[in-house]
Amino acid sequence: MSRPGSPDGEDPTTGGGVPRAERLGRILLARVVEPGDELGGRWLRELGPGTVARRLTGDGAPLPGASDKRWAGLRARAERADPERDLAQARQVGARFVCPGDGEWPGQLDDLGDARPVGLWVRGRPSLRMWALRSVAVVGARACTEYGAHMAAVLGAGLAERGWVVVSGGAYGVDAAAHRGALGAGGATVAVLACGVDRSYPRGHTELIGRIAGQGLVVGELSPGEHPTPGRFILRNRVIAALTRGTVVVEAAHRSGALATARAAQRLGRFTMGVPGPATSGVSAGVHELLRGEAVLVTDAAEIAELVGDMGELAPDRRGPVLPRDLLGPDARRVLAALPARRIAAVEEIARGAGATADDVVGKLYELRSLGYVERHGDGWKLTRQAMISVSSDRGRC
Amino acid sequence: MSRPGSPDGEDPTTGGGVPRAERLGRILLARVVEPGDELGGRWLRELGPGTVARRLTGDGAPLPGASDKRWAGLRARAERADPERDLAQARQVGARFVCPGDGEWPGQLDDLGDARPVGLWVRGRPSLRMWALRSVAVVGARACTEYGAHMAAVLGAGLAERGWVVVSGGAYGVDAAAHRGALGAGGATVAVLACGVDRSYPRGHTELIGRIAGQGLVVGELSPGEHPTPGRFILRNRVIAALTRGTVVVEAAHRSGALATARAAQRLGRFTMGVPGPATSGVSAGVHELLRGEAVLVTDAAEIAELVGDMGELAPDRRGPVLPRDLLGPDARRVLAALPARRIAAVEEIARGAGATADDVVGKLYELRSLGYVERHGDGWKLTRQAMISVSSDRGRC
Repeated sequence: MSRPGSPDGEDPTTGGGVPRAERLGRILLARVVEPGDELGGRWLRELGPGTVARRLTGDGAPLPGASDKRWAGLRARAERADPERDLAQARQVGARFVCPGDGEWPGQLDDLGDARPVGLWVRGRPSLRMWALRSVAVVGARACTEYGAHMAAVLGAGLAERGWVVVSGGAYGVDAAAHRGALGAGGATVAVLACGVDRSYPRGHTELIGRIAGQGLVVGELSPGEHPTPGRFILRNRVIAALTRGTVVVEAAHRSGALATARAAQRLGRFTMGVPGPATSGVSAGVHELLRGEAVLVTDAAEIAELVGDMGELAPDRRGPVLPRDLLGPDARRVLAALPARRIAAVEEIARGAGATADDVVGKLYELRSLGYVERHGDGWKLTRQAMISVSSDRGRC
Repeated sequence: MSRPGSPDGEDPTTGGGVPRAERLGRILLARVVEPGDELGGRWLRELGPGTVARRLTGDGAPLPGASDKRWAGLRARAERADPERDLAQARQVGARFVCPGDGEWPGQLDDLGDARPVGLWVRGRPSLRMWALRSVAVVGARACTEYGAHMAAVLGAGLAERGWVVVSGGAYGVDAAAHRGALGAGGATVAVLACGVDRSYPRGHTELIGRIAGQGLVVGELSPGEHPTPGRFILRNRVIAALTRGTVVVEAAHRSGALATARAAQRLGRFTMGVPGPATSGVSAGVHELLRGEAVLVTDAAEIAELVGDMGELAPDRRGPVLPRDLLGPDARRVLAALPARRIAAVEEIARGAGATADDVVGKLYELRSLGYVERHGDGWKLTRQAMISVSSDRGRC
């Protein structure tokens, strides 16, 4: 299979359809403007990343809307920025930079308008775009109860077993339990960090975040080496909300950050869900507040999956694969071709057939599952009925 | 004050605006037709209680809609019925028969259409009509958890403290906790039984039901001596739903009777509420099912009171008393006149002033509170600002 850290054989850090100058401009902007800065977003939209980067690093007048003081601050940051160094630093942890225009860019982030991330640093093999298509956020209190941790783990596992990608923030408490639940079920999970993806925050989660990067994806809009701040946590939440089809809040006190994620999801037209708890529990109070509004009460993964739907408008025709097979990347097509026609196969067998590692194959299998091509049966995988017909007539083409 | 068991001086068992023959006819029908029998309701509506009773006890042809077999069954029951004996039996426990046409009849029961009770047997001094105007049902599982019992007791007390009448079914578990919560707060509570009001069901609640009859109201549509049956429990629930402005389900498994009450409330356009619990709790599963539908999640009495409203359409003008003072019964007017002009008074002081027992006075005070005349302050009572103006100009009239 292609280089480690690469989706479908593209260059992990500079590949894709985006011109190199534009990509480097975005990497510079990611270092210079804070997440969610709508003024930066407007400049990007109106002038393009190349021009904005040149103006920030050159001698020109301030861009429209920025005070002299603010402009000076941005220019000072731009002076210290070095996109090539950022790329090199990212490469050390196997991270790539994904931005609008890339095939891997998750289009639903465009719903954020001018608050859309300039780009995302991504660690892990799977395609962020493919995974995001079938993802649910499971978020909640850091200081959760045992009940909250139990529910997050059970929902994470249950969603993973149903082929859903579990997205969370990598924090202590509910986030970690949701990630671990998905990992434990051999499923797919994405951690969206409020710091550089080369950092592990919180420190106690170094191992967990490493496992997520190995088995899933670690994502963030902050440049390598950047630290989290309270404001960055809040703004990170809009990415979790926008990336996913819905947000489930497991436990959250009043004024919790998880409620901000849920409210962002609501504003973006995503599904918002809450797990009930005892009315006497302070860390369920915020969830109950949500449930007294527009959020839907959910008690298990089946209810969540039912609500966020079977790809909904993304999969108008459930009888056939979601994505035309020609649009699959070469690695995914190779895995598809390695599946036996009519029986369940173990990952190892498929990996041998595809000439790839088991780790690579698992990532691709989840992608293919989200696209309607394969089904999971216990530890094995099988072509769906729809896929059998089209694949058997096409076997060996890729 | 008037005879024990009497609302505002009317004859406790045969008084009111309903002709004696009609009342006796209804008492006979209450013995003969099962609760909620819509055919009986239709006969009553089309022919009146006198005619229906005569046809059941005379030699005429079956009434329309009844098969010969069913008619024979009803006639056999009618033959054994004896309204005068029922009245005497009721009188022994201080119960009266309240039916449509009586001043004490709660008009909202008419929403049940032909399933409206033929009449209600009522034990306790307060006016059922007045209490029902400002009542909320708190119902739930018999086999509740400690959490459920705790929540029911806290909600019962909190509603009582806010001047709401707590209605429930007198059963073990949630019902009993709700009644006890209201009683413990010195508040108002109504038990709607699925058996004769001279019986205590369950047997273990003999003392509780006695206390409710002493401090509140025990109500039922079954004739004296009648036993509960599964069907009667279910049909009793429609009375709880119709009598109240809303139903709160505290804990309920799937297919629980409390869910039937909530669904009946929904059909009748009443508020339906549920108290959340852990998603892992079987006795919260039914509540969560409701909350995934139209029911509103509530976690405390304030939220319930806010939802069912401050008398809503029953109290269009919050600046003045709800009911013109001339429509108050003589006892209520006497209690009103016994309240000091501007300060809080203890029940004993008011009772001395009104020349009545403390028990009688408490019942009237809750009525007056529900009508906007008085406020409770700890253990004392005080005229509302609105009431002060009108009462001071009128003092001593009654």
